[in-house]
Amino acid sequence: MSASTEDIEEWSPQGPVTELSAEHCWKLLNTTTLGRLGVSIDNQPEIFPVNYTADGASIIFRTAHGTKLRDLLINNTVVLEVDAQIENGAWSVTVKGAAAIIGPDAPPGSDADEFLPRWIPTEEFVYVRITPTEIRGRKFEHELRLIIHPA
Amino acid sequence: MSASTEDIEEWSPQGPVTELSAEHCWKLLNTTTLGRLGVSIDNQPEIFPVNYTADGASIIFRTAHGTKLRDLLINNTVVLEVDAQIENGAWSVTVKGAAAIIGPDAPPGSDADEFLPRWIPTEEFVYVRITPTEIRGRKFEHELRLIIHPA
Repeated sequence: MSASTEDIEEWSPQGPVTELSAEHCWKLLNTTTLGRLGVSIDNQPEIFPVNYTADGASIIFRTAHGTKLRDLLINNTVVLEVDAQIENGAWSVTVKGAAAIIGPDAPPGSDADEFLPRWIPTEEFVYVRITPTEIRGRKFEHELRLIIHPA
Repeated sequence: MSASTEDIEEWSPQGPVTELSAEHCWKLLNTTTLGRLGVSIDNQPEIFPVNYTADGASIIFRTAHGTKLRDLLINNTVVLEVDAQIENGAWSVTVKGAAAIIGPDAPPGSDADEFLPRWIPTEEFVYVRITPTEIRGRKFEHELRLIIHPA
């Protein structure tokens, strides 16, 4: 897996951008539980919001036997994107990798049972693990301004 | 474009899910400005957070001459996903369609200049429009719980 060891400050047309180290990316991934899973079928991209847990080596999420899972069985090359607003900017971390179905039980030693939302217990779910081939994080100044319009 | 005219309540393994009408989706798209753009190159999905504006018929965003734009020139089939936490749940709207580069100026009549973040004015940007072929919105109860872990 490509992994930088320190944050690197750069400049983009959007203003200052800092490329984050892999270690910093994993720390940020642990500050929240909501990400967006990107999958692609015949070059048609799909995005699903998912709750995930990150253990510093892989990403785990749960899903039902729906669209997401069908897509993953066709093409397991995925990306998970997680971002957040911070003071004076935003960060975004993307993890690319291969998704593999673990099965109906949380992997041993995982905090998935603790942190993932408790679904209706009688329904069937499977756990899916993303093994990263690439992790990239960027911190933007100015970009990704979140404006809440009146509804 | 496929478009429903009213919200439909359904049930999923995650709990109650409401399929939202196209009109409801466009209203929700107008309540925020931050979405995630999904593109796909050779079945490798990519996700970029973007600020957008929605006018009820199309989506407009700005981008620099970077990765996003290069990807769009290779494959303009995209998806934009927007979601938000609400009391007792969350909603998610996805817009699939074709992205087309408009050029360096905001389209006439658009509020893009007003609502998109003001970038450094000397840098070159292009406006991109997504013309939807499909819009889908869902309101989840229980799902997509956002937990903020201590950093």
